[in-house]
Amino acid sequence: MAGARDLDVPSLVAETREGSPRAVARLISLVEDAHPALRAVMAALAPDSGRAHVVGLTGAPGVGKSTTTNALVAAYRARGERVGVLAVDPSSPFSGGALLGDRVRMSEHAADPGVFIRSMASRGHLGGLSWATPQALRVLDAAGCDVVLLETVGVGQSEVEVAGTADTTVVLVAPGMGDGIQAAKAGILEVADVLVVNKADREGAARTSRDLRHVVEMADRPDGRWRPPVVRTVATSGEGAADLLEAVEAHRRHLGQAGLRERRLRRAAHEVEALALEALRSRVGDVGGRDRLGALAAEVVDGRTDSWSAADRLVDAVRG
Amino acid sequence: MAGARDLDVPSLVAETREGSPRAVARLISLVEDAHPALRAVMAALAPDSGRAHVVGLTGAPGVGKSTTTNALVAAYRARGERVGVLAVDPSSPFSGGALLGDRVRMSEHAADPGVFIRSMASRGHLGGLSWATPQALRVLDAAGCDVVLLETVGVGQSEVEVAGTADTTVVLVAPGMGDGIQAAKAGILEVADVLVVNKADREGAARTSRDLRHVVEMADRPDGRWRPPVVRTVATSGEGAADLLEAVEAHRRHLGQAGLRERRLRRAAHEVEALALEALRSRVGDVGGRDRLGALAAEVVDGRTDSWSAADRLVDAVRG
Repeated sequence: MAGARDLDVPSLVAETREGSPRAVARLISLVEDAHPALRAVMAALAPDSGRAHVVGLTGAPGVGKSTTTNALVAAYRARGERVGVLAVDPSSPFSGGALLGDRVRMSEHAADPGVFIRSMASRGHLGGLSWATPQALRVLDAAGCDVVLLETVGVGQSEVEVAGTADTTVVLVAPGMGDGIQAAKAGILEVADVLVVNKADREGAARTSRDLRHVVEMADRPDGRWRPPVVRTVATSGEGAADLLEAVEAHRRHLGQAGLRERRLRRAAHEVEALALEALRSRVGDVGGRDRLGALAAEVVDGRTDSWSAADRLVDAVRG
Repeated sequence: MAGARDLDVPSLVAETREGSPRAVARLISLVEDAHPALRAVMAALAPDSGRAHVVGLTGAPGVGKSTTTNALVAAYRARGERVGVLAVDPSSPFSGGALLGDRVRMSEHAADPGVFIRSMASRGHLGGLSWATPQALRVLDAAGCDVVLLETVGVGQSEVEVAGTADTTVVLVAPGMGDGIQAAKAGILEVADVLVVNKADREGAARTSRDLRHVVEMADRPDGRWRPPVVRTVATSGEGAADLLEAVEAHRRHLGQAGLRERRLRRAAHEVEALALEALRSRVGDVGGRDRLGALAAEVVDGRTDSWSAADRLVDAVRG
């Protein structure tokens, strides 16, 4: 077993390809920690990816993403498919800690060797999610998953972007969580390939479905031909999970090879750009470091310079 | 009246200083559009800022931010203070359009010359908010506002960050919008200087207040001395608005000059860093442009390279 100092990258990569849950867990931890060995890991995994279909599940807190993911895992397992679950938990901007309690509910699949379940915290600033998520997906892909369910709390543009880089994006709402306009405001409907009204046994479910269908009909979508279906589920009982799986598969067929490639190019472009910006940002921190930025901020606060001129000086320092 | 081609920056700045609503509106539009004249505007306004107390109001969609802002405007107006309202609306990642319908509710103050109300869309990607918001605040500050209410939909880390750069941050929740844990998950409680349970006439308000107090007591706060008070409001009737104003003022007194300066340094540092990264990002687009990123993404998708190596090549191009 490799320690932090003498990571045996080739062995970990080989074990991941053989589907070792321990190796998968280890590699995803490296992604989460932005470990220096990650470059070597990703270089080794580069040729492996592109098999798994990535299904993003997103929605506001409380809509039942974990239980829906759980129900969908069961549905895919019933078809004999190998399933990965990657739950991206937003962490507090200050504490850096993630609240992973929800994952306990996934425990019914924890002992199933055909299911990989990993949580990942979105530590640090926003850009982290953009590059870490595709890299964690690549690990699960290399481990032989047929499908990876990517669960994010879809409350901000960043989380929406993460979910939107999936091959198929499922947006969940629940009755009484706010009407269609509120959902539209959050910008999550436009990334939806499949819409789910979960807790469909609750009052107001029919109205919420109707509202969503209305919003879908009104919306201008980049891909004009696909109209996101609205599926009703009661994830706690598994009701509607088969319909949801069928809706995901229908979207996958609709995408075809060309559509899938287009999405994956977009995901890779996001990833590369985020890594490049991250490198540039850390360079902003290097040259004279935080001190320089702090000094420039003081000049702005004191009215001795404006923020644009201050930014120019920071950029010059990075390029020099 | 200056057209887009022959903007008379000195006149617009002078009129803004005299409190012309037209000039304020014009300058904030320049901020929103990232207009080339913005550099000159901010250079001219650099010495003006730092008078207005900036109060961030944030919370999930549906908690009643607009009505609370409205009630708070009335409370400040009753004290004879000049009030600015800056509502930052998240826009869809695809359409670029903002849904500003809520602002209609602010119309009772629309004719009051002591109140400036502006909405700003968070166009384009996330970084935009980080630099545009402080610049719009600077405009309202220069126009002579004693207090500026910065209203954002606090659903993602980016919006939370925007609200968190205020001098005093008010986080709103409503009964039945999810329990304390859900709010903690969204990371918004940790930026709160004042907590508001709005719609306090609804069932569950007492429980929500109790939950919030509990979370506040549990939380590790960077500033250990200040414990955010929990204020109950019914914004639609104005009930509790005076208590909210008093809580904001108490926090302001607690901050003092040193605390205020610390917050403003942080805000300016965010702004300068965001502008610098924006400049670097646009340079990523310049050198060979989107085509280069697209080609690198294709190499990643095809497994011919890994994302870290691709990012290195992008960074080298930017620095070259």
